[in-house]
Amino acid sequence: MSVILTGDRPTGKLHLGHYVGSLQNRVHFQDIYKQFIMIADVQALTDNFDDTAKISKNIMEVVKDYLSVGIDAEKSTIFLQSRITEIAELTIYYLNLVTVARLQRNPTVKNEIKQKGYLNSIPAGFLCYPVNQAADITIFHAEYVPVGEDQLPMIEQANEIVRKFNALYNCNFLKESKAILSSTPRLTGVDGKAKASKSLGNAIFLSDSKEDVKQKVMSMYTDPDHIKISDPGKVEGNVVFAYLDAFYGDKDELESLKSHYMKGGLGDVTIKNILIDTLQSFLDPIRQKRGLLKDEDVKNILQDGTFKAKSIASDTISQVRDIIGIGAIK
Amino acid sequence: MSVILTGDRPTGKLHLGHYVGSLQNRVHFQDIYKQFIMIADVQALTDNFDDTAKISKNIMEVVKDYLSVGIDAEKSTIFLQSRITEIAELTIYYLNLVTVARLQRNPTVKNEIKQKGYLNSIPAGFLCYPVNQAADITIFHAEYVPVGEDQLPMIEQANEIVRKFNALYNCNFLKESKAILSSTPRLTGVDGKAKASKSLGNAIFLSDSKEDVKQKVMSMYTDPDHIKISDPGKVEGNVVFAYLDAFYGDKDELESLKSHYMKGGLGDVTIKNILIDTLQSFLDPIRQKRGLLKDEDVKNILQDGTFKAKSIASDTISQVRDIIGIGAIK
Repeated sequence: MSVILTGDRPTGKLHLGHYVGSLQNRVHFQDIYKQFIMIADVQALTDNFDDTAKISKNIMEVVKDYLSVGIDAEKSTIFLQSRITEIAELTIYYLNLVTVARLQRNPTVKNEIKQKGYLNSIPAGFLCYPVNQAADITIFHAEYVPVGEDQLPMIEQANEIVRKFNALYNCNFLKESKAILSSTPRLTGVDGKAKASKSLGNAIFLSDSKEDVKQKVMSMYTDPDHIKISDPGKVEGNVVFAYLDAFYGDKDELESLKSHYMKGGLGDVTIKNILIDTLQSFLDPIRQKRGLLKDEDVKNILQDGTFKAKSIASDTISQVRDIIGIGAIK
Repeated sequence: MSVILTGDRPTGKLHLGHYVGSLQNRVHFQDIYKQFIMIADVQALTDNFDDTAKISKNIMEVVKDYLSVGIDAEKSTIFLQSRITEIAELTIYYLNLVTVARLQRNPTVKNEIKQKGYLNSIPAGFLCYPVNQAADITIFHAEYVPVGEDQLPMIEQANEIVRKFNALYNCNFLKESKAILSSTPRLTGVDGKAKASKSLGNAIFLSDSKEDVKQKVMSMYTDPDHIKISDPGKVEGNVVFAYLDAFYGDKDELESLKSHYMKGGLGDVTIKNILIDTLQSFLDPIRQKRGLLKDEDVKNILQDGTFKAKSIASDTISQVRDIIGIGAIK
């Protein structure tokens, strides 16, 4: 079975956007790939080193999110990145194979630097995190990495390192990886902002209570010009319909709801109630599963997965050391 | 006892310049400090990643150089950097605390980048190596680091990281370190070049045979205008006198040799023979000691030292993880 590596920065609980964009794929992938799911706490440090509580408090929550949506610890290896110290060692070796100028040209990093307003105070760890990612991918010999379109340059960077390493050390040890692009459009925030986000607080979390979901849907951005029920309404940019697109099972019925709304005569409260019902029946089994999870068991799952991941990483790094010719006392 | 950290990149056998500049101090330091001596193979990788055989073949030679000049493995902990993978992990954490701009301003690195002609293809690992050094120093809680004047910015960089870490994580865990500047002037190369150097091949190695030493001294650069024995000769810039300054025991006698040479009437062959005798009697006990070293014992010394260093590093990194709040599964 081919290896696939995926994961999340544990900087918040996971939300419906994560489900649509990646979690549901992982539930599928675990049957056809050897799947590693990384809780990327070291990567989360690169832009949260001044608020590490945000990371530590979310680790177990994220594992619970995984398990409650159907990720099966028997099929998927869930592990904590920081415990795989071999990744740090491999990163140090890879840093020699990448130029500073190349890192500065990385479009994803450039864009994030802009977003974060780092200007001239870019932390070195932030600039170097694509190299860390290359180590994540290659230490498990991952052949597939599911990513968003904006993350494609990361895979390209990792593959460049792979080629450089193999050429330099005259071997064929490292494998290039392929991106798997998610076909699902990104889920917008309940406020209509482009992206549902842990940090913006505009997301519906997998762990939200019935009441939370109800409130969030009721506050959803719809069509500001749809004043009276009889007014024609806009579906495009209407968050309720965006969520219905993602979660409403009967697509034909959904189409007629949309027509009705556009023609006029379908109220926001009605469509919101439909969405609430849809989301509650989607979330109910997830909540149920979550409710059955014992903290001790979740901890054991993460520990076992980390142990398993570490043994693979340790094997890889031994071979890397042999190939480079470093670390031997002889 | 205070901790002192010192070491060498294992990119060649050590020479008389190393003895004068650092090894003789270490023999002294080991009685007054808790001394760690690092074989910096990971650091050597940053500019030798494309020729790693150069590193691996010199590791045991350097340990033999240490032991043969009187470094005592009972008093000093000699260890291999690459085996202390905790340094790599700490480096990754520290990279978040330093900006790229700050690294680019480091005068030592700037100078070396120029020397190596990296221009716009500076390996990221090279730019980041001061961060790696900060990890080397702090992982052993070193209070003193013997350096040349040109390395002072490295200590400053390490101390900046210490202050940033302590401030950010509201602790007093990391200690700033102090540079110990060597008072001995740098030993020139036998060809009169500014610096005796492993790579320039103009050095007299501690492991050189009697014949090698004789040949190298006989080829030494003296005063090109000192043609006939009766001609007045120049002492300044004369490599033979530079070496006599460093190794000739009787300073008064040396002064009268210099006067004689400057006045005229003292031949190059005569002073070279004096230097040969001086160096052979200096090197004889070192050669003798080296001859008694068994490969197996040298290997054990490096293994034991590495084991000891690793246990301290492991203790430090556990505490660092606790302070940052990373790596716990709980």
